Amino acid sequence: MVLSDKMHTSQKELHFDLAAYLQERQTLVEVALDRSLPVIYPEKIYDAMRYSLLAGGKRLRPILCLATCELIGGTIDMAMPTACALEMIHTMSLIHDDLPAMDNDDYRRGKLTNHKVYGEDIAILAGDGLLAYAFEHVAMETKNVPNDRLLRIVAILGRAVGAAGLVGGQVVDLESEGNTAICLETLNFIHNHKTAALLEASVTSGGILAGISDVDLQRLSRYAQHIGLAFQIVDDILDITATQEELGKTAGKDLRAQKATYPSVWGLEESKSQAQSLVQKAKAQLADFGDRAKPLTAIADFITARTH
Amino acid sequence: MVLSDKMHTSQKELHFDLAAYLQERQTLVEVALDRSLPVIYPEKIYDAMRYSLLAGGKRLRPILCLATCELIGGTIDMAMPTACALEMIHTMSLIHDDLPAMDNDDYRRGKLTNHKVYGEDIAILAGDGLLAYAFEHVAMETKNVPNDRLLRIVAILGRAVGAAGLVGGQVVDLESEGNTAICLETLNFIHNHKTAALLEASVTSGGILAGISDVDLQRLSRYAQHIGLAFQIVDDILDITATQEELGKTAGKDLRAQKATYPSVWGLEESKSQAQSLVQKAKAQLADFGDRAKPLTAIADFITARTH
Repeated sequence: MVLSDKMHTSQKELHFDLAAYLQERQTLVEVALDRSLPVIYPEKIYDAMRYSLLAGGKRLRPILCLATCELIGGTIDMAMPTACALEMIHTMSLIHDDLPAMDNDDYRRGKLTNHKVYGEDIAILAGDGLLAYAFEHVAMETKNVPNDRLLRIVAILGRAVGAAGLVGGQVVDLESEGNTAICLETLNFIHNHKTAALLEASVTSGGILAGISDVDLQRLSRYAQHIGLAFQIVDDILDITATQEELGKTAGKDLRAQKATYPSVWGLEESKSQAQSLVQKAKAQLADFGDRAKPLTAIADFITARTH
Repeated sequence: MVLSDKMHTSQKELHFDLAAYLQERQTLVEVALDRSLPVIYPEKIYDAMRYSLLAGGKRLRPILCLATCELIGGTIDMAMPTACALEMIHTMSLIHDDLPAMDNDDYRRGKLTNHKVYGEDIAILAGDGLLAYAFEHVAMETKNVPNDRLLRIVAILGRAVGAAGLVGGQVVDLESEGNTAICLETLNFIHNHKTAALLEASVTSGGILAGISDVDLQRLSRYAQHIGLAFQIVDDILDITATQEELGKTAGKDLRAQKATYPSVWGLEESKSQAQSLVQKAKAQLADFGDRAKPLTAIADFITARTH
């Protein structure tokens, strides 16, 4: 009996069902996001904020935050307001990036972009509203977490989205447009800031909420940096190889915008190989956590395996 | 001697030198703002953020925060990061309000608006960067304040700028454009959210940093609401009566934009009388604080006396 139980457990561990895990977490996050932002007067701005916040998506950032909090011994409840705030910040960056003055995109996640539905003025304000609300939500709604940890979360979120993070990455991205000859260093800067910074904040904030040690925080930061860059390389690859239907957004736009991408610097095969290598390095950071890190390990693999 | 001393004190009290007080505080705030945001790579975004953040202005919000903190027994040092954050948030709202998709303004504080100098894309990002940095700055730089108070500050700032504050007011303002027949209730909603909310946050945050009681917080909230509305009424009056040179921004634009204003609802004389009445009500809230409230009393008077 004991041997059989052990074998059963071992098989369960080997066959960690990521799809079911992601589906379950995604549902929890959707419910929490829906509850986080009720519609009051003036309805139009709450409608616009909710239109983009509840437009689907993988909810990767909230899920990473919840998973890391649990890995370090915390609970989903402790981390949910921060998880929602991460998605609010991510959504704000998408709304503003899609604006005519920026990437001028008409579609996002298979739906019209925010400004195509509500107008540019409301889209700008919906982004501002989501960004501001992210901080209010963390400060007001988090329960059973010491205040010093929450203040670290506020600082981490602010840094991840500001000029030292997302905004800084977007500026260099805009400056580099039309210049396909930019160096690898610049390309890395763009994506370490545009993509990896918020993924790293998702992971580190989850850990900090649960009272992570400095050593573990460094390990998980490196994990997040590696999967963040791998995520972007795969995004660049998919922009070339996937169809618009698969992506839910305009495909092939990097090429048309004459943007430097990893495939344009390395070629397609080398890009795939680099993404694989980064995922291996990310998973190596999880070694000491044992089986508890299965969700984060599986998420790392998922990044290179995804098709949209 | 005693009588003479008393008379001297009393004269000093009667002649509180607001101009000198504002000048001194403004200088402190300018120095702190300049130090708060060093220029690093990518320089363009820090330049754009600093261009608007250091473009002058009365610094009324930081000064209110410092003054209230001192009134409740706190220090300038305790309040300075929050004071700077309030100005970052205010500046962000000006940058985004001036965008072509919003009020489409070319001048602000006598200088070209942010998007006229840096382009629309950078102006949107500079606003986002300032908003995010405001929260990071409060969380990272505030010293000698208990963490629970700082988390209240984060929540107050988030609420004041989000859909429940500035953003909500701007949405109703945009919806009401071209409609000069909007009711007083709507006009009050716009300005209670666009103007008064952040002024109220300036006052209440200063008090909370210093450990204010609930009763005093209510008094000072009412003080701030009254001066906030008075401030906007005077702004509307000045838009009609002042020249562009005096204002440092485009004059007469409310009329051209067919915006409902207090003068358009009440007429000029009644608007002036309402502003005066609000200032009296604001000052009445300060009665129990005695002479320590002189700066806040003088600032209330200054609001109706100002010409720009």
